[in-house]
Amino acid sequence: MPYGTDTLTQLQEILGAQNVLTTREDLIAYSFDGTAAMQQLPGCVAFAQTTEQVVQVLRLANATKTPVVTRGSGTGLSGGSLPCPDCIVLCLVKMNRILEVDRANLTLLVEPGVTTLAIADAAAGEGLFYPPDPGSMKISTIGGNVAENSGGLRGLKYGITRNYVMGLEVVLPDGEVCWTGNKCVKDVAGYSLRDLFIGSEGTLGVITRVLLRLIPKPAAKKTLVATYADMGQAAQTVSDIIAAQIIPCTLEFLDRTTIHCVEDFAKVGLPLDCEALLLMETDGHPAAVAEEAAKMEELARKNGAREVRVARDDTEATKLATARRSAFSALARLAPTTILEDATVPRSELATMIRFVDTVAKKYQLRVGTFGHMGDGNLHPTFLTDERNKDEMHRVEEAFKEIFAEAIRLGGTITGEHGIGLAKKSFLPKFAGDAQMRVMRALRRALDPNGILNPGKMFD
Amino acid sequence: MPYGTDTLTQLQEILGAQNVLTTREDLIAYSFDGTAAMQQLPGCVAFAQTTEQVVQVLRLANATKTPVVTRGSGTGLSGGSLPCPDCIVLCLVKMNRILEVDRANLTLLVEPGVTTLAIADAAAGEGLFYPPDPGSMKISTIGGNVAENSGGLRGLKYGITRNYVMGLEVVLPDGEVCWTGNKCVKDVAGYSLRDLFIGSEGTLGVITRVLLRLIPKPAAKKTLVATYADMGQAAQTVSDIIAAQIIPCTLEFLDRTTIHCVEDFAKVGLPLDCEALLLMETDGHPAAVAEEAAKMEELARKNGAREVRVARDDTEATKLATARRSAFSALARLAPTTILEDATVPRSELATMIRFVDTVAKKYQLRVGTFGHMGDGNLHPTFLTDERNKDEMHRVEEAFKEIFAEAIRLGGTITGEHGIGLAKKSFLPKFAGDAQMRVMRALRRALDPNGILNPGKMFD
Repeated sequence: MPYGTDTLTQLQEILGAQNVLTTREDLIAYSFDGTAAMQQLPGCVAFAQTTEQVVQVLRLANATKTPVVTRGSGTGLSGGSLPCPDCIVLCLVKMNRILEVDRANLTLLVEPGVTTLAIADAAAGEGLFYPPDPGSMKISTIGGNVAENSGGLRGLKYGITRNYVMGLEVVLPDGEVCWTGNKCVKDVAGYSLRDLFIGSEGTLGVITRVLLRLIPKPAAKKTLVATYADMGQAAQTVSDIIAAQIIPCTLEFLDRTTIHCVEDFAKVGLPLDCEALLLMETDGHPAAVAEEAAKMEELARKNGAREVRVARDDTEATKLATARRSAFSALARLAPTTILEDATVPRSELATMIRFVDTVAKKYQLRVGTFGHMGDGNLHPTFLTDERNKDEMHRVEEAFKEIFAEAIRLGGTITGEHGIGLAKKSFLPKFAGDAQMRVMRALRRALDPNGILNPGKMFD
Repeated sequence: MPYGTDTLTQLQEILGAQNVLTTREDLIAYSFDGTAAMQQLPGCVAFAQTTEQVVQVLRLANATKTPVVTRGSGTGLSGGSLPCPDCIVLCLVKMNRILEVDRANLTLLVEPGVTTLAIADAAAGEGLFYPPDPGSMKISTIGGNVAENSGGLRGLKYGITRNYVMGLEVVLPDGEVCWTGNKCVKDVAGYSLRDLFIGSEGTLGVITRVLLRLIPKPAAKKTLVATYADMGQAAQTVSDIIAAQIIPCTLEFLDRTTIHCVEDFAKVGLPLDCEALLLMETDGHPAAVAEEAAKMEELARKNGAREVRVARDDTEATKLATARRSAFSALARLAPTTILEDATVPRSELATMIRFVDTVAKKYQLRVGTFGHMGDGNLHPTFLTDERNKDEMHRVEEAFKEIFAEAIRLGGTITGEHGIGLAKKSFLPKFAGDAQMRVMRALRRALDPNGILNPGKMFD
């Protein structure tokens, strides 16, 4: 037991003995998240079921200076919910109630442990739409989505998690409960603490309730797949689509390696004799969708697409979208360790960045499959490696250094949607610069003077 | 001269003598903003033209602990840019260059002194669209819009200033320059300092560059005016429109007093025999616009509208929108002192709130004209008073207390788009609650330990 029996006894009193895990077998299951090659046993795992329990856990932790790492389903890809040594893993999956659907104000009030899919379903059940759709949405929780400010496939048109959070209940490190935001479309009273908490990766407070904004469901949707002999043609298609004043809801691309893996995995009949594939989706009013789809097809052909396939119906569209969603899992079958990156650049620099990733992979003799959100400039180069191969892992690290430096040089960012966590901590200072680092440190110290929340993560 | 000759001499050295105003006549022109009944002479007025000059001014101010109040055109309605005693008014209207239009990434880089209208025009010149349209957009500056997180008439569909800011250059109180944000659609590297600065009302830093997001221009637009014998019918129309899954770009209302004033002022032929008027605008794809306009007309009639007028063409539509925009000016002609409020409630509570304002006005024997953004729940009760009448001003104050308390009770906010500034400072603690107040104070202290930026504003 890493910390005093007292602390553990008190935790059990607060949560009930059955909600505090301490055996090695139990702890192992909570010693990692979705991030490759990272593992750390916590001191214990604690399941809270109410805000009041979270309050008491944080009071206890703050008084005893015990580190707390909050987590949901642990699907994060930057080690944000990886335990710190001797920490309490505060797991909120049991706080999973949908508390209110407000049709008049188009809002949804939920607990943090509700899955993203359950939220999308609850919205759809009312004929409404919750757009953010991170790759892991089937199991990821909304608390994690908010803490990481998760993206997804629809970011270009609909924005990301931040754009749908209207209010938050947050328990501060000392156990005080803070509500920020409300059901008003407009509210400018005071600093937007809500926006500070969003994306703060569990370092400033524990999110215990989320008020989400819903929007009307688009009436129609059309899905297209275009294949190219050359990545440059795909990139030019994307530029031409934007120049034509079309903002599709999805503009995804897959490279040759990813296409082969996905087809092998999902068998949706993707053409295998191409270098790049674009998955395009437009939604909205049926007339707008028809016109935009026709225009996108025309632009794809103009740019030399070998084949443009329009999904016949919803079933085929879903199949294609699901194939794209399976890209990471498909690639993960090829190697023991799959490292998924999300360096992101302004859209105009994406073709340059994709070529750069290929060059770097060759230079360091690494296998890479690249896919991602082309309309967003959000790239997912996925390195297929083996963490037991120290030499290879060292080369991966060197490759990342070059990729992130190039992303920054092109006016981009080291992470588009996965967060800093532990995985990118060493790259943040160069990206953010001294002034931002100083301000972020000052803010964190101001809110968590004892440094109990996710210590060692993001920056410290 | 309120502070040492040294400070003034150094300011003149930094900016050039012609850019530092000190005579009483000059200072008087900068002793107020758009807020009624508030005036305070500054120590001096300083015009910066470059970021480097802002850096040097803040270094000087920080070293000498001289208060700095940043301002643009001074159109604010909460006293946010009202001088503090002996302060330097740092006026940025001379930093008014549009630095870059990036068509590939749909961004616009500007200095803070560019007017909102110039930004809208620059976007339109490229066939693009900058949606935020605060009432004062003809003269308000983008720096002020960002500092106040300004709203406008299109908030319901398009969001507010925050939703269009991708990046900021901010000079911190100690003179350090901090860039936050970039041209990436997605970026989750570190806390979103950008979002913290937006709406911080000049208390955390001085904004010296703004990177804005543009969107494609809607292809079509239709404007309708519906008049009602009863405010409840107008409110029900709004609810029905939302329930029909329509999010119009504008859903404005005017009450009887405002209608009469506006018609008298703008002569656009508004019907005078009604209690409420709805101005509705839908934009987007022509087919969607046609359907939505027809549906809105149907819903207005179903709810008992006396008359529904569809603008024949752009000219008439612009005339109607301009009439609505003139509401504040029109009301301001009726009384020496016009106090414009912006209590905001969840959309579903708007009818209740409008009735409450009327009741309170009667109780305190006050003249009030109410208009506002009905789709947003953002109300503008405008009290027609005379600040020389002490008794009346006292009654106004009492009325506000009741109105804000009711807004909070209904789950609303004390300011939807004008900010706290000095005007609403006393109401913020009750709205925000102890925990939020404590966090906001801690953040402000962390960034501005000497308290030089806008001291006494928002909270202290």
